[in-house]
Amino acid sequence: MRILGIDPGYAIVGFGFIDKNGSRLTPVQYGSIQTEAHTDPSQRLKDIYESVVHLIDKYQPEALAIEKLFFNRNVTTAMTVAEARGVTILAAVQKGLPVAEYTPMQVKQAIVGYGKAEKKQVQEMTRMFLNLAQVPKPDDVADALAIAICHAHSSTLTDKINGVLGR
Amino acid sequence: MRILGIDPGYAIVGFGFIDKNGSRLTPVQYGSIQTEAHTDPSQRLKDIYESVVHLIDKYQPEALAIEKLFFNRNVTTAMTVAEARGVTILAAVQKGLPVAEYTPMQVKQAIVGYGKAEKKQVQEMTRMFLNLAQVPKPDDVADALAIAICHAHSSTLTDKINGVLGR
Repeated sequence: MRILGIDPGYAIVGFGFIDKNGSRLTPVQYGSIQTEAHTDPSQRLKDIYESVVHLIDKYQPEALAIEKLFFNRNVTTAMTVAEARGVTILAAVQKGLPVAEYTPMQVKQAIVGYGKAEKKQVQEMTRMFLNLAQVPKPDDVADALAIAICHAHSSTLTDKINGVLGR
Repeated sequence: MRILGIDPGYAIVGFGFIDKNGSRLTPVQYGSIQTEAHTDPSQRLKDIYESVVHLIDKYQPEALAIEKLFFNRNVTTAMTVAEARGVTILAAVQKGLPVAEYTPMQVKQAIVGYGKAEKKQVQEMTRMFLNLAQVPKPDDVADALAIAICHAHSSTLTDKINGVLGR
């Protein structure tokens, strides 16, 4: 199964595609979509939407895993990030992908085994899970990969439970 | 000029199309897009997006006027409304419409002439400006028409200023 992990954003959207074969995880492609601050806000939403559509067309994931937003000290930023998250989810739904949402705590729990783990620990574990030489930069990219891994682990768990129940 | 006014929402999106001919404003169509609470959240975003696209195709407005979001007591609601606002703006930008944003205070100022006017006053003035027998229901619809009128007044003002400056 190919999973697209997204760390939602407005100036920077982190993305990471990973393949899950049994318990083996392989990175496929990762990076960030960046929009320019001097661009019209509506145009930035369109740019994000079109970039996500393009990435989905190119890498053909079977699921989107995206971080849930929590309230931020900066309200204006939180609102614009939520708008950008809306168009990101729209792109996935239009392509028929199921959308899974995870809180930052669920991601930390899935990656490090502890919901209050430090960012550095999450990044280092993400790097190890995917056999990467270095932690991808910027942080948004590493976060996106962590969300994809979180979904891979959750779906593995679901598979196991389904197996036990004979479904 | 035909203007589409939108009161952004997730469960209810108010919309109102008005025509502006000189200083004369005529209502064209108004109503609400409603999404069901039991529906998948991602699907609700898709439903809103598709409904806005459909309305734009049908009524061919030349501009979108949409309310800016302010922080709400309910954070979760504010975030989902912002997501829905994002897909609404996306639909307009994809159709080539310019997007104008107004704060609730700017709308009140434009309609009643006082930025802290009561909701009832705004609704009554909206009804009068458009020669409607009654205030449209629910409130989201009346709000959407008020935003459209606000944009009509702002653009009239811009025309006048441009005229004075000989542009």
